[in-house]
Amino acid sequence: MALNGVKALVFDVFGTVVDWRSGVAREAAQFLAGHGVDADPFAFADAWRRRYSPAMEEVRSGRRPFERLDVLHRENLDTVLPEFGLDAAKVTAAELDELNLAWHRLDPWPDSVAGLTRLKARYIIAPLSNANIVLMLDMSKRAQLPWDAILGAEVVRAYKPTPESYLRTAEVLAMRPEEVCLVAAHNSDLAAARTCGFKTAFVVRPTEHGPRQTTDLEAQAAWDVVAKDFVDLATQLGA
Amino acid sequence: MALNGVKALVFDVFGTVVDWRSGVAREAAQFLAGHGVDADPFAFADAWRRRYSPAMEEVRSGRRPFERLDVLHRENLDTVLPEFGLDAAKVTAAELDELNLAWHRLDPWPDSVAGLTRLKARYIIAPLSNANIVLMLDMSKRAQLPWDAILGAEVVRAYKPTPESYLRTAEVLAMRPEEVCLVAAHNSDLAAARTCGFKTAFVVRPTEHGPRQTTDLEAQAAWDVVAKDFVDLATQLGA
Repeated sequence: MALNGVKALVFDVFGTVVDWRSGVAREAAQFLAGHGVDADPFAFADAWRRRYSPAMEEVRSGRRPFERLDVLHRENLDTVLPEFGLDAAKVTAAELDELNLAWHRLDPWPDSVAGLTRLKARYIIAPLSNANIVLMLDMSKRAQLPWDAILGAEVVRAYKPTPESYLRTAEVLAMRPEEVCLVAAHNSDLAAARTCGFKTAFVVRPTEHGPRQTTDLEAQAAWDVVAKDFVDLATQLGA
Repeated sequence: MALNGVKALVFDVFGTVVDWRSGVAREAAQFLAGHGVDADPFAFADAWRRRYSPAMEEVRSGRRPFERLDVLHRENLDTVLPEFGLDAAKVTAAELDELNLAWHRLDPWPDSVAGLTRLKARYIIAPLSNANIVLMLDMSKRAQLPWDAILGAEVVRAYKPTPESYLRTAEVLAMRPEEVCLVAAHNSDLAAARTCGFKTAFVVRPTEHGPRQTTDLEAQAAWDVVAKDFVDLATQLGA
């Protein structure tokens, strides 16, 4: 089998396990309507998400000490508001804190829980996400994601795709890198993990970015496994 | 109710959730017999455990950088062997590494899984143990402990009972200390947690140290909850 010797599957989460765009848009819609803003809530979700990687890059580059994602999301939210004609000073902090928790309340793709439940019987399963622990904990409890543990950026204090984020995760698991497989819907994440010696599984999520998505529609390298969803992944792995 | 406002229950594990002494003795018995040593395996477990707190004290005092418990257990094992007439140089490292994993294979007390399952429906539940992540992960997967996340010393890089171990855990949970309750069978652990503002729940485990146990047989302070086991705890908390 493609994953001979693998003991743990670690998962990218935003886009791979959960549909962040619909979830954020759902809560943004209420927020925008409450402030009389006539704007596409999906555009709001996209604008907020666009600031995600640059914010982490400040940490990855060493220009800023490690800071958990909830804090970065909250800072980014302040900068998104003017783009939608909102004055941050006129919105209460409590309301923005609440909207920031939209990231804690994302729904899984329809196959995620069923696939993870099967995979858990055969492998250790854990998120390896840039989300901080309580974000992932809240999301997982609400969505009933059956993780064995919550790993990720806050545990190893390093953001993907730095090598430290993968290598320290293998170290926490007391495994060699080739005993760990990253499952992700993003070719770039898999490429970085493979460089560190991880096994790789690509799961296509063709609507992560909406109906007109142009990226990550197919495997761009010979990943160890390519699956159409988590149920297919479980079947391919005999789980 | 005693725990009004509490959102998360965090648990001491060795002694409180699992019976470390019987589990370690079970594997030590095989090991000792394999080396022709006629010794009480419970005495071996006690001798190994006796080195636990002094080893962590090296880290707590700042004399040694943080090191995960698996490493401390393994070092301590080397120093226990001569006490039982064994020459560490005559035992293979692989065999000692395997015996060290006895701590990953401890059985829960009979009420632990049933009680945790009920408590999980009402609270976030997570270990706050000095065990490292993969130790807790292996133990929990084998014993089906239904944690929402694995917290503890390795996540916060601090050993109990330092204030940092409790306060950083509350910070990871994005909660005020009084929103977190420590559940433990040890009065000293609860006292340290209360000093940090945590709520406290004492569960008596009268045979953690065997049939002649003399410590922690009763609550030594007015803890917020006192329960006779995890099922009783769940009932008292309406879970």
